Amino acid sequence: MDFDTVIHGARVVSSSGATNCDVGILDGRIAALGAGLNGVESIDAEGLIALPGGIDSHVHIAQPSGPGIEMADDFASATRAAACGGNTTVMPFCLPDDGQTLREAAAAYLAKAQGQCLTDVSFHLIVKSADPVTLGQDLPALIALGMTSFKVFMTYRGMRLTDAEILRVMDVAREHGALTMVHAENEDAIEFLREKAERSGRTQPVQHARTRPVPVEREATHRATTLAEVADVPVMIVHVSNGAALDEIQRARARGVRVLAETCPQYITLTADDLDRAGFEGAKWVCSPPPRDTQEQAAIWAGLEQGAFDVFSSDHCPFRFADTAGKDAPGARASFRNIPNGIPGVETRLPILFSEGVGKGRISLEAFAALTATNHARIYGLDRKGSIAIGKDADIVLWDPAMTRKVTQDDLHHGSDYTPWEGFDVTGWPVRTILRGRTVMLNGIPQGSPEGVHVARTKPQVMP
Amino acid sequence: MDFDTVIHGARVVSSSGATNCDVGILDGRIAALGAGLNGVESIDAEGLIALPGGIDSHVHIAQPSGPGIEMADDFASATRAAACGGNTTVMPFCLPDDGQTLREAAAAYLAKAQGQCLTDVSFHLIVKSADPVTLGQDLPALIALGMTSFKVFMTYRGMRLTDAEILRVMDVAREHGALTMVHAENEDAIEFLREKAERSGRTQPVQHARTRPVPVEREATHRATTLAEVADVPVMIVHVSNGAALDEIQRARARGVRVLAETCPQYITLTADDLDRAGFEGAKWVCSPPPRDTQEQAAIWAGLEQGAFDVFSSDHCPFRFADTAGKDAPGARASFRNIPNGIPGVETRLPILFSEGVGKGRISLEAFAALTATNHARIYGLDRKGSIAIGKDADIVLWDPAMTRKVTQDDLHHGSDYTPWEGFDVTGWPVRTILRGRTVMLNGIPQGSPEGVHVARTKPQVMP
Amino acid sequence: MDFDTVIHGARVVSSSGATNCDVGILDGRIAALGAGLNGVESIDAEGLIALPGGIDSHVHIAQPSGPGIEMADDFASATRAAACGGNTTVMPFCLPDDGQTLREAAAAYLAKAQGQCLTDVSFHLIVKSADPVTLGQDLPALIALGMTSFKVFMTYRGMRLTDAEILRVMDVAREHGALTMVHAENEDAIEFLREKAERSGRTQPVQHARTRPVPVEREATHRATTLAEVADVPVMIVHVSNGAALDEIQRARARGVRVLAETCPQYITLTADDLDRAGFEGAKWVCSPPPRDTQEQAAIWAGLEQGAFDVFSSDHCPFRFADTAGKDAPGARASFRNIPNGIPGVETRLPILFSEGVGKGRISLEAFAALTATNHARIYGLDRKGSIAIGKDADIVLWDPAMTRKVTQDDLHHGSDYTPWEGFDVTGWPVRTILRGRTVMLNGIPQGSPEGVHVARTKPQVMP
Amino acid sequence: MDFDTVIHGARVVSSSGATNCDVGILDGRIAALGAGLNGVESIDAEGLIALPGGIDSHVHIAQPSGPGIEMADDFASATRAAACGGNTTVMPFCLPDDGQTLREAAAAYLAKAQGQCLTDVSFHLIVKSADPVTLGQDLPALIALGMTSFKVFMTYRGMRLTDAEILRVMDVAREHGALTMVHAENEDAIEFLREKAERSGRTQPVQHARTRPVPVEREATHRATTLAEVADVPVMIVHVSNGAALDEIQRARARGVRVLAETCPQYITLTADDLDRAGFEGAKWVCSPPPRDTQEQAAIWAGLEQGAFDVFSSDHCPFRFADTAGKDAPGARASFRNIPNGIPGVETRLPILFSEGVGKGRISLEAFAALTATNHARIYGLDRKGSIAIGKDADIVLWDPAMTRKVTQDDLHHGSDYTPWEGFDVTGWPVRTILRGRTVMLNGIPQGSPEGVHVARTKPQVMP
Repeated sequence: MDFDTVIHGARVVSSSGATNCDVGILDGRIAALGAGLNGVESIDAEGLIALPGGIDSHVHIAQPSGPGIEMADDFASATRAAACGGNTTVMPFCLPDDGQTLREAAAAYLAKAQGQCLTDVSFHLIVKSADPVTLGQDLPALIALGMTSFKVFMTYRGMRLTDAEILRVMDVAREHGALTMVHAENEDAIEFLREKAERSGRTQPVQHARTRPVPVEREATHRATTLAEVADVPVMIVHVSNGAALDEIQRARARGVRVLAETCPQYITLTADDLDRAGFEGAKWVCSPPPRDTQEQAAIWAGLEQGAFDVFSSDHCPFRFADTAGKDAPGARASFRNIPNGIPGVETRLPILFSEGVGKGRISLEAFAALTATNHARIYGLDRKGSIAIGKDADIVLWDPAMTRKVTQDDLHHGSDYTPWEGFDVTGWPVRTILRGRTVMLNGIPQGSPEGVHVARTKPQVMP
Repeated sequence: MDFDTVIHGARVVSSSGATNCDVGILDGRIAALGAGLNGVESIDAEGLIALPGGIDSHVHIAQPSGPGIEMADDFASATRAAACGGNTTVMPFCLPDDGQTLREAAAAYLAKAQGQCLTDVSFHLIVKSADPVTLGQDLPALIALGMTSFKVFMTYRGMRLTDAEILRVMDVAREHGALTMVHAENEDAIEFLREKAERSGRTQPVQHARTRPVPVEREATHRATTLAEVADVPVMIVHVSNGAALDEIQRARARGVRVLAETCPQYITLTADDLDRAGFEGAKWVCSPPPRDTQEQAAIWAGLEQGAFDVFSSDHCPFRFADTAGKDAPGARASFRNIPNGIPGVETRLPILFSEGVGKGRISLEAFAALTATNHARIYGLDRKGSIAIGKDADIVLWDPAMTRKVTQDDLHHGSDYTPWEGFDVTGWPVRTILRGRTVMLNGIPQGSPEGVHVARTKPQVMP
Repeated sequence: MDFDTVIHGARVVSSSGATNCDVGILDGRIAALGAGLNGVESIDAEGLIALPGGIDSHVHIAQPSGPGIEMADDFASATRAAACGGNTTVMPFCLPDDGQTLREAAAAYLAKAQGQCLTDVSFHLIVKSADPVTLGQDLPALIALGMTSFKVFMTYRGMRLTDAEILRVMDVAREHGALTMVHAENEDAIEFLREKAERSGRTQPVQHARTRPVPVEREATHRATTLAEVADVPVMIVHVSNGAALDEIQRARARGVRVLAETCPQYITLTADDLDRAGFEGAKWVCSPPPRDTQEQAAIWAGLEQGAFDVFSSDHCPFRFADTAGKDAPGARASFRNIPNGIPGVETRLPILFSEGVGKGRISLEAFAALTATNHARIYGLDRKGSIAIGKDADIVLWDPAMTRKVTQDDLHHGSDYTPWEGFDVTGWPVRTILRGRTVMLNGIPQGSPEGVHVARTKPQVMP
Repeated sequence: MDFDTVIHGARVVSSSGATNCDVGILDGRIAALGAGLNGVESIDAEGLIALPGGIDSHVHIAQPSGPGIEMADDFASATRAAACGGNTTVMPFCLPDDGQTLREAAAAYLAKAQGQCLTDVSFHLIVKSADPVTLGQDLPALIALGMTSFKVFMTYRGMRLTDAEILRVMDVAREHGALTMVHAENEDAIEFLREKAERSGRTQPVQHARTRPVPVEREATHRATTLAEVADVPVMIVHVSNGAALDEIQRARARGVRVLAETCPQYITLTADDLDRAGFEGAKWVCSPPPRDTQEQAAIWAGLEQGAFDVFSSDHCPFRFADTAGKDAPGARASFRNIPNGIPGVETRLPILFSEGVGKGRISLEAFAALTATNHARIYGLDRKGSIAIGKDADIVLWDPAMTRKVTQDDLHHGSDYTPWEGFDVTGWPVRTILRGRTVMLNGIPQGSPEGVHVARTKPQVMP
């Protein structure tokens, strides 16, 4: 039998091992693994590594972000950047506008993505109101449509839910088999520190980090895991930035609570010092939680090495520097308070972890596959994604493990006008991204038309 | 191309996922995964689960065990039982007799196994003397021959090493890239309690459990991880029996020490009460560390569910009841002190974990594959074992997930004359075991001649 | 020189030791310690123990407690019971009525107490509103008047403050040198569980305990200590009921947070099973946090033995059984939700700790003095109270350490019509209570007129 | 009645509080506290603080210390230094010579001390052999004579005991009511690191610190507390140097083990950098455990502030610089291995803690009294020592809290020819030391003849 496409000669990696074999692709799915396969199209991958296409389960695309500020990426640019960074699926968030129901918002985001995407996409929901319609009608309906995960915020005015509201959301998750993701920072404590800083005239970008210190994340993490314990549901703590928060997660697990954990490139490579540059330059590194210090980086690395983290995502949240620092009247922009929170990262996530993790011997290729694709697929119910295995979608990324690069804005495809990793040296880079059998990136150039689709998901699977 | 053998229709499970496909076997190795494969031999596995053949990395076979006592299994019976329990590789220990060098012992054990085995075998070494010949010559030579792991004991008179000796052994492991396994119980503390018990006339089998309480294991576990920290090597803590010891392991990991952990069926299903039966009956449950209580069982389950354990082994250590309880003069046998430590388990390990773990929803099939095969292969350097993947040995076990059984001695193939799990109900049982493409067990009946070989191993791989 | 009163022959105990000597009292204060002192009044205390008069820093008196329910004690009965139980000072709470300012409330409570008290009293404030008048005017004014401590609630609708409000209160405490006390239970989580219980028809008194499980107290304790960390102030966690909450306190201390801790008799002697009696009888044991189980009792004892607790108070909160269980329409009372929270205990606190703690060898007499008097005085700024030392108020209680009693409602002087310790056996009982040199209780009989006064306090002293 | 001596006008401090009063002394004991006392001798202490005379429960005097090395202090010089540093009792160790029984050693040390001491003394025993005579005869006999505490070593070749031996010693302690003190460092791990350092040519004094890293003390501390748990006895962990070891102590306490803890001035003021000076100068700071770093200092301070430590001692162990660094042949002295372990400190202990602790607001005067005198007396059974209270020995030290000094060798009275605190600034210094009513130091000058006696002790009292 001839396959549509056969990848020859790569070292094929899954989260459970690596082997040299051909990969036969038929009708967009992986149909055969073995030797001597023949395909209409033949890809020579000698010397390359074939990994499951990256799944980035934490990206923000085309969300409105405060007065006069739009995110720097729409679905076209974000998924183009994602594909160039070795990803085949991204999981953006659906955020209702004020006055919009969650179902209306879902429809709107699906429409925005429709026909624009170079990778597949699958939406998480953001629950910013725990009203009866949202909980009783919209969530069940959207879960049934395959949006089986939602995020709640313990921070951000206008977004944050109370503990009572989070418990009600978790109760829906329990009943309908969805997964609750939590952004864990204590808004009240942050606001207390923010006001103190502003009153004393401390308004530079670095104050963003100083007013969101480790204890406010540690506390919220302890609380989030306790709410999950009380509601008897699993919970995903997203973007864990430090060892104290991770310790709370481990302690909850030891009590039997099913806690999943995510971390991101910023917490293993950046520090609060990056926010402390001259003028408003530091605004380019403003994200929440903020980068910490090298000691906390070491704690996050230890967690990655020991399997304490389930997924490694980007928390891609792209802005333009002008939006972060100064297009409005000087007065209105004077404070770190008004810098939109978020940094771009969908295109650099995989190379950073490959280079710093695999390349420096901290994690194995198998762990890399698990952290960047396989676990995302299992946990979020993307049943046909995440592994190079028979029957799965042929979502594959070929890596040149020896290629050395310096990350630079000029080479990137996202909508932001800067990268926080400008000048960062990496070894290893994706050279071809294949989505359901079709090449969507080759040697850094996006390929083909945007045929990415929205993927409905099954129930989350939280057991390793 | 026709394969030697094709398995049709099974649900094929690896540690990273499950898929329905055919498995093509050629020259004893897995050559293809896909659909519509043709083989000279065709195995219909519709409705069955294909798992990587079990690897039991902790079994004792044909070791002398004190005056007048021989283990109840030789290599023929032990590997027959192993195959019938769904295993394709077992890892027994090579224990030098007094006066024998480690190399002589290795030669002797290889000879004992030669031509007897229905599964493959690969030896660990037991280092009971840290003399210059053992450390400077024997260990390096045997590591070079592929015996890349060795066990040290912190308990058992005549076996235990001092901390100084363990450090020297670990130093050899570091230099030559081998893995040190530690039996962690504090012999001095045990002996202190044992003498107290005997002096007060408490000599029944249950005293075995009472004189080896949790603190003596917790202490030795803390110490073993500290020695590994000082020597800067990874360490495997075998047969962890309780939550306090596991907690020490997790704390060491959080400090950055590379600690691997093993647990066994006895610590999730048996308790110290089993040792407290009338007469000397309790001797059938005597093993070290002893089974604890239901609260500690829950802690071990939590560890399994959360990925805190790397491997799940049997610590198969078979005796005959007469040897444990009374063939000698009454006086000599009067005390629990003289009961040989160990229980049989190589044949029941997999069904117990399948039934209690997968069947009861505590762990996934993927985790089962990891805990019973894949991780053993990776950690101990069995490069061609542990996964159903292209290029691996065709070591496969087919499970009927719905078969219900009551464990009973009459059905088992080991050399012991009892099982500690007599009457234990399980759902799920292996129905065919395939070693390098050849069926060695079918429907509970051993098949074929003993063509198992000794497998040399590469360097242990401790990163997940 | 002749003293007004001399106590002869007692074993005089302070938190730092015990000695046999005379105690000379002049003008209501301790003027001399030594031998051969002469006084106008001479008290023979041969065979008795002289301890500093008990200070109960957590009592509720004459607070309104929901529709139609008044507390069972006014200041006359509460302080009479306190004196009979060996106390010389009690610290009740001043709770503003709705619409009342804190200063108005303080004036009202002072008026209620005026001329009624057999012991001295000193008020804590309850901050149930963090409005600008309370924070900016009332608290500073009342602190200046010597009410240097206030309590905030994380539970109880209408009382609980948000984290933001607690932080603002703590900021006032920091600025003015007062101490913040926290009732740490997560109201939202409790309400979630309460609604679940009610929806499923579980409304008996024991549901009070089941809907306030350990995690809701542990979480709030972690949060309260984090808020103190963020606000950079000391904090007192009152009525700690279990080991997990205590563990959070110890972890916060290890981070350098100044956390004080209180526990109460109910957490070392009662369990949730007490709430599970036939009918509504269990309502007599309803308090918050609820009594737990014997394992948590052991954890609290361990804390007392090791000095993890600073103070041991009663949380006296007296109701009449009819008020807890049924005077209203059956329907309205059907649920545990409507049982007022609190049990009487001001009269039994000291004998219970003396008997269970000192008598059973768990704590020393010196620790008893510290836990029941000295530490309360130091921590809350009662400079002239808490020790039998030169210059201190002559607040002394004489104990007969050998007297055996069975606690029974008939012998008690509080306003409740029951005691949760009915039938509880104790050894050791106070036989004479002396307030500023005057005997206010002798052999169980209150003495003299109510000459207790309100005591203004200095800044809290949190260092041991 | 006229007293022999009256101290007028001091602020009299005990561990439970402070008061202004006169102190009447009769027959060497405190006979009265009050106002207007008259004495034959009158001491004007206006503006001074009267504290209980310091008890230093960890000093080494006149011990042989390896080939050709004698300690720099005999009993005359050591107690002279002690008295000048504000102490009235020191507790040295009795160390048997090789071949000497413990009873012979005790007799010899008593003889060495006889008639030489300016302070009182009371011996601990060192158990360096767990032979039947020592355990069965000598220890019981010496305990009966009032030597109710003994120390065991987990480090030092020739001194260290095995776990089995420590358990047997603890068993004697349990049976006879004595207290076991443990020097907790893992000798085997240290020797492993020492040999590695020497093999690689690293032999400077700082290697002393690097070959005794925190993990070797943490491990031994965990083990020591476990042995105490197994033997069911209290245990005192001496000279705790870091937060990880303290954490093990706290965890053991939380399990219910009665663990006492000591720390010393070197762990709050010195660091390993002090050992890293040019040439062999660093030898002056060699003690075991070694000083750590500022982070560990902070952890020790946190423990002192929160009451985690019971006693603060000097571990005075005086050598002459020539003995530490070079009087022998160059070769023999080349390594840090040969530097005798210990630093002088009996004279500076109290001023350092007073200045750094009380003066800098970290601990209260009451805590100072507890940590330097009261707790030592209670824990080690010095019933007539440790407090300014009726009936106690009149052991009192008067402090000038405002005196500023720079510590310098020229001012000190010990036998060492240097002090590790040369140039250290302190505020507060003892100006008069009174032993049983007699002034033994005035304004830095020793007074009177050596009338210090050996004090027999009662059973240790480990409960706070």
